[in-house]
Amino acid sequence: MPELEQHHHSQHLRILELNRALNDGMFVHVRRMLQQMPACDVALLLQSTPITERKILWQLTDPEQQGEILEELNEDAMESILKMMDPENLAAATEGMDIDDLTYVLRSLPDDVYQQVLEQMDSDERHRVEIALAYPEDTAGSLMNNDTIALRPDVSIDVVLRYLRLRGELPEATDALFVVDKENKYLGDVPLARLLTVDPSENVESIMGKRPERIIPVSMSENSVAQLFERHDWISAPVVDLQGELVGRITIDDVVDIIRENTEHSMMGMAGVDDDEDTFAPIWQSTKGRTLWLGINLLTALFAASISNLFENTLAQMATLAVLMTIVPSQGGIAGTQTLAVVIRGLAVGHIGASNMRWLIFKEVAIGGLNGLIWAVTIAGVVYIWKDSIQLGLISAAAMFADMFMAGLAGVSIPLFMQKMKIDPALAGGMVLTTVTDSVGIFSFLGIATLLLNHHIAI
Amino acid sequence: MPELEQHHHSQHLRILELNRALNDGMFVHVRRMLQQMPACDVALLLQSTPITERKILWQLTDPEQQGEILEELNEDAMESILKMMDPENLAAATEGMDIDDLTYVLRSLPDDVYQQVLEQMDSDERHRVEIALAYPEDTAGSLMNNDTIALRPDVSIDVVLRYLRLRGELPEATDALFVVDKENKYLGDVPLARLLTVDPSENVESIMGKRPERIIPVSMSENSVAQLFERHDWISAPVVDLQGELVGRITIDDVVDIIRENTEHSMMGMAGVDDDEDTFAPIWQSTKGRTLWLGINLLTALFAASISNLFENTLAQMATLAVLMTIVPSQGGIAGTQTLAVVIRGLAVGHIGASNMRWLIFKEVAIGGLNGLIWAVTIAGVVYIWKDSIQLGLISAAAMFADMFMAGLAGVSIPLFMQKMKIDPALAGGMVLTTVTDSVGIFSFLGIATLLLNHHIAI
Repeated sequence: MPELEQHHHSQHLRILELNRALNDGMFVHVRRMLQQMPACDVALLLQSTPITERKILWQLTDPEQQGEILEELNEDAMESILKMMDPENLAAATEGMDIDDLTYVLRSLPDDVYQQVLEQMDSDERHRVEIALAYPEDTAGSLMNNDTIALRPDVSIDVVLRYLRLRGELPEATDALFVVDKENKYLGDVPLARLLTVDPSENVESIMGKRPERIIPVSMSENSVAQLFERHDWISAPVVDLQGELVGRITIDDVVDIIRENTEHSMMGMAGVDDDEDTFAPIWQSTKGRTLWLGINLLTALFAASISNLFENTLAQMATLAVLMTIVPSQGGIAGTQTLAVVIRGLAVGHIGASNMRWLIFKEVAIGGLNGLIWAVTIAGVVYIWKDSIQLGLISAAAMFADMFMAGLAGVSIPLFMQKMKIDPALAGGMVLTTVTDSVGIFSFLGIATLLLNHHIAI
Repeated sequence: MPELEQHHHSQHLRILELNRALNDGMFVHVRRMLQQMPACDVALLLQSTPITERKILWQLTDPEQQGEILEELNEDAMESILKMMDPENLAAATEGMDIDDLTYVLRSLPDDVYQQVLEQMDSDERHRVEIALAYPEDTAGSLMNNDTIALRPDVSIDVVLRYLRLRGELPEATDALFVVDKENKYLGDVPLARLLTVDPSENVESIMGKRPERIIPVSMSENSVAQLFERHDWISAPVVDLQGELVGRITIDDVVDIIRENTEHSMMGMAGVDDDEDTFAPIWQSTKGRTLWLGINLLTALFAASISNLFENTLAQMATLAVLMTIVPSQGGIAGTQTLAVVIRGLAVGHIGASNMRWLIFKEVAIGGLNGLIWAVTIAGVVYIWKDSIQLGLISAAAMFADMFMAGLAGVSIPLFMQKMKIDPALAGGMVLTTVTDSVGIFSFLGIATLLLNHHIAI
């Protein structure tokens, strides 16, 4: 079915066509093309478009569809668009949005605009929103939707089936209905698949599943929710409050977003970029976003330079040391980063805890020591051959061993310590680590060389 | 509901208890504890346990449950366990496994063991496996399962409902049944939610959805499948072959694994670690796994050193240059890595294509230039104050501008070029990039200094 492949791969061709139409000022044509696309494709298109064109495209989208498009955008792209909408437009676009998507949009608004949008809503909607916004961000409460369908345990399946036919439609990603008692306390669930396969004369109580491990407390962290969904392959799960009352449900599509955000956060954090950064943000905005990180890095680079500055006399006596002194910190930095990445991933997926932390520290320090030996021998040989000096080879080897050992120790203990202190290891870990490996590498290399020179040993 | 929180947070406490029981040799107790846990929790436990204890734990698991546990393990942990099983055990454990999980396990086996396991299977099962294994890895074909339920268009809903009740159970993550004609050509789907809400006297054809964008060609890449699922919030989707015949279906739980693997791959790749690395692998295995990367890094570090070696005379004349020469490459490396991370993420989520590539290159080069200006001015000031030399400040500034400009250019063009050459930018990009930024940084800094010195300009 080659036409199918084409359907799926024509996204960027379509964008090219849209861009051409846009540049030629054929706005009517662009508007028509946009209206024929599903909201998720328009969202992808907006996110793949530089900011100036993005704003024009947005003006040409169908106002009826704008709410749906907003839901699909990532945070930074959404903010770039929210900025151009006035509170009336916003209230209109967000009307009828699911509560979880609505709060996602509202949380991105500046405080004054947000107040104005709230005022535009009818009091029912406003009340719903205020309840949802009361749950802290990054918890199950802020992830959940309130589109649950709840049944009483004593109804017969036949009645349930008739009720569903009357209702006519089910919320997205509904794979189970929930069972509650008169006080709205959660009792269990009835999967749709089960509804379809049991004898209709049974009643809800006799076919419902209990599965207490599937109940999510409203205060649970987003990250734990994602781990549970991933581990158990759930499509949806009920959320209950402290009293055990059913307050909403979480669906897999929101969890997929969390999983992507969390892993991207680790990657982008380690590379020193804000994970919200919009690939097609304006140049100045991206530059500003990356400045903080570069500023911190400059400080650590100056710190490392100040260490070699301690040895200026030694460097003046022997320029070869300046040539060789960058090798050890480079190798130590990579080894430490490898350890850091393994530990950050282990923490993120929940594999690391009190039970295995000691073993992990031992393991990474041992790898640091082993790597230290391997690369110490290698660098000794390389430097001996290159510079024809056994002493320089031995100095390099000693510094290499010391730095790689420290890389293992720092690479595992920095993220574990930060996690304990509630500092995000993905954000700050890399910077602290390379400061350690740079300093130890330079200090040990130039320090040993200075000792030998001061004792008038020819190197 | 604090007991719920406890249920969810007791994972590591349980591991501690298991470890204690294991150390005390209370194997009967451990075996009982393991048998009370669901397979996904046992899998998490195995993955959180160092390799020696992991092997003992595995011996104590319920043989009936071993197949289910294997499915839940990540690749490296699974391999560590497959190694200790003989072909008969393996064939027994994999009996009745879903075909997608079975091929996942079989692909991890050494060739000879794999043949022996195949021989242990009955001919039906073997035939199914051989068909599944014929699809290339990393395509929709290798992701799909063949547990589809297919309907004919002319049947009435009433008949469908009666058939389902007779059948008694539906495969995991079934949110829709598929409709095919006599030649098994795919026609459309009937969501379960729709089955429950329509009038039973209707027939399949009148209520089925067509949704051609939802049909997945069997040769589509895993990554594209994951992007489609994520964009459209699907739970499952049909897979068809070149003739349009229904050959299987893909479910969200497998897609979640792909999404996690892909984003982890980018993070681990940029940090220089194999993304399959088992956090609790034996020390020597992890050391070996990280060696290749450290070897390549040593080569690039030696290359950078060979560049400063060109300027040994200059360094001998002025040791302060050795102190300052590490600052510019450090800053260039970070700026380049920021750009690299943004581009790698953009490529992974499909936001970058022919339509916006030029703009992106322009943007990142512009950011490089702007950053170059900002940090050139900063470093000029810092060096002037620190070393009391306008000339050294100006040399640092010029080198900083050149290196950060190159960092922007290289950071965006290296991954785009690699993508075109079908080289994985997440794996090789970082190494090539820092080689460029290190070389340009050192060469421009020491080069300008040498020019000035040779013209007898006091610096």
